[in-house]
Amino acid sequence: MKSNIPYPVIVLVRTQLPENIGSTARAMKNFGLSDLRLVSPRESWPNKGAKSMAAGADSILENIQVFESIPEALHDVSYTVSLTARNRDITKIEFGPEHAVKKILYYSEKNEKSAIIFGPEQSGLTNDEISISNALVKVPTEINFSSLNLAQAVLLMSWEWKKVHLKNSLSEEEYKDISDPKLYHKTPISSVSERDYFFSRLEEFLEMNNFFATKEMQPSVMNNLKSMFARSNLSQQELGTLNGIISAIERKLKTKGKS
Amino acid sequence: MKSNIPYPVIVLVRTQLPENIGSTARAMKNFGLSDLRLVSPRESWPNKGAKSMAAGADSILENIQVFESIPEALHDVSYTVSLTARNRDITKIEFGPEHAVKKILYYSEKNEKSAIIFGPEQSGLTNDEISISNALVKVPTEINFSSLNLAQAVLLMSWEWKKVHLKNSLSEEEYKDISDPKLYHKTPISSVSERDYFFSRLEEFLEMNNFFATKEMQPSVMNNLKSMFARSNLSQQELGTLNGIISAIERKLKTKGKS
Repeated sequence: MKSNIPYPVIVLVRTQLPENIGSTARAMKNFGLSDLRLVSPRESWPNKGAKSMAAGADSILENIQVFESIPEALHDVSYTVSLTARNRDITKIEFGPEHAVKKILYYSEKNEKSAIIFGPEQSGLTNDEISISNALVKVPTEINFSSLNLAQAVLLMSWEWKKVHLKNSLSEEEYKDISDPKLYHKTPISSVSERDYFFSRLEEFLEMNNFFATKEMQPSVMNNLKSMFARSNLSQQELGTLNGIISAIERKLKTKGKS
Repeated sequence: MKSNIPYPVIVLVRTQLPENIGSTARAMKNFGLSDLRLVSPRESWPNKGAKSMAAGADSILENIQVFESIPEALHDVSYTVSLTARNRDITKIEFGPEHAVKKILYYSEKNEKSAIIFGPEQSGLTNDEISISNALVKVPTEINFSSLNLAQAVLLMSWEWKKVHLKNSLSEEEYKDISDPKLYHKTPISSVSERDYFFSRLEEFLEMNNFFATKEMQPSVMNNLKSMFARSNLSQQELGTLNGIISAIERKLKTKGKS
């Protein structure tokens, strides 16, 4: 299922909090990314603060490479995008996350490595830093609250990458299978005849207990009940439970009748 | 642009870390969600630990409602989905995030409120807690590293909601405008005749400086140069800079010639 194309490199520039490096590693690992590079982190690296937030993504933390400049960090990368929340006084192509991962996939399929670059928590990347990127990525957030948490921004891009990669490497059928509704049963789904047996038992039971106000209403009330149960796609076990309820009440009624 | 349909409610159940409540508020506010409800948080609420992670999403924190049970938290909600990373020994419909937000949008358009429910950091929701949900949402993470950070999971769902809501409330044209590539210029884009003036100046300049090895090669070399510059969609200002470079070198060459 997984093709061998290069996955995007994540580059964190002048990151202030080691915790965010840890959270970033976790977010990357959730979606299969592994190459994390730091450019001039504020705190020295390796740093204990990252470990607990990584929640087990230790392999990523251990393989982090640290660089002094963005061009050094991108020595083997050919296509780069930079995340930005601010409008820039610079002439640049800008697009949304979905378009960005499609571009990255396009280069990955040519076996070209891409990078997604994220600036420091407070200020974002400088114009100087983004000038080397092929394009900017702007997430369509609320206008008055546009600054994403750093690791959450990485998660968003990693998730979009995972989706576009899955859509591309799976057949339509296989992709539908991971995204569209599935019904999980602990036991097999009931057959129509098993359900029909239950429906007739239910109808007889309700009739015996004078549930139907009039004989005329009976068929439409039963249809409503059948539709309700049919909608929930009963398993054999669930049908067994429902039949069991009827049996239990019937037993109780019999005992009462005797006493 | 923004329609008045109800946005999904976010419900955090037995959350352990107040910091995650703060990060959740920020993620929600980034994408326009505002109704955050807590069910039996481990630490008392309000809690100072949430504030700094909320990074300005104070309005959400201030309006948080706290409940003792999930049904109480959902008193005004009609459709609910629960996030889960684990497979459950329970018969449930399960789908991916994109399908989940489409279902929520469907109910929102009927003015029915939906909720997205998230369990505690360590263990997730119990089978008892998820049994009341209409469906489960499973994010297609890496199989061996499937546990998302709580606030990152909220961000992912809020982002998917924002996208489906934008796709629905904007025209196709308007949506393309926020997602597809745009070129931002600080100054207007150059006209073809302005570019043509630059190209002839460049050609003359290169000719004067014996750049072209042979006369035969000249047209194809110039075509390559023109294509390169045309691809980057030059602004008037950028074209001015390029013309300025030629002028500066010409001046320098004249001075040298004199000395």
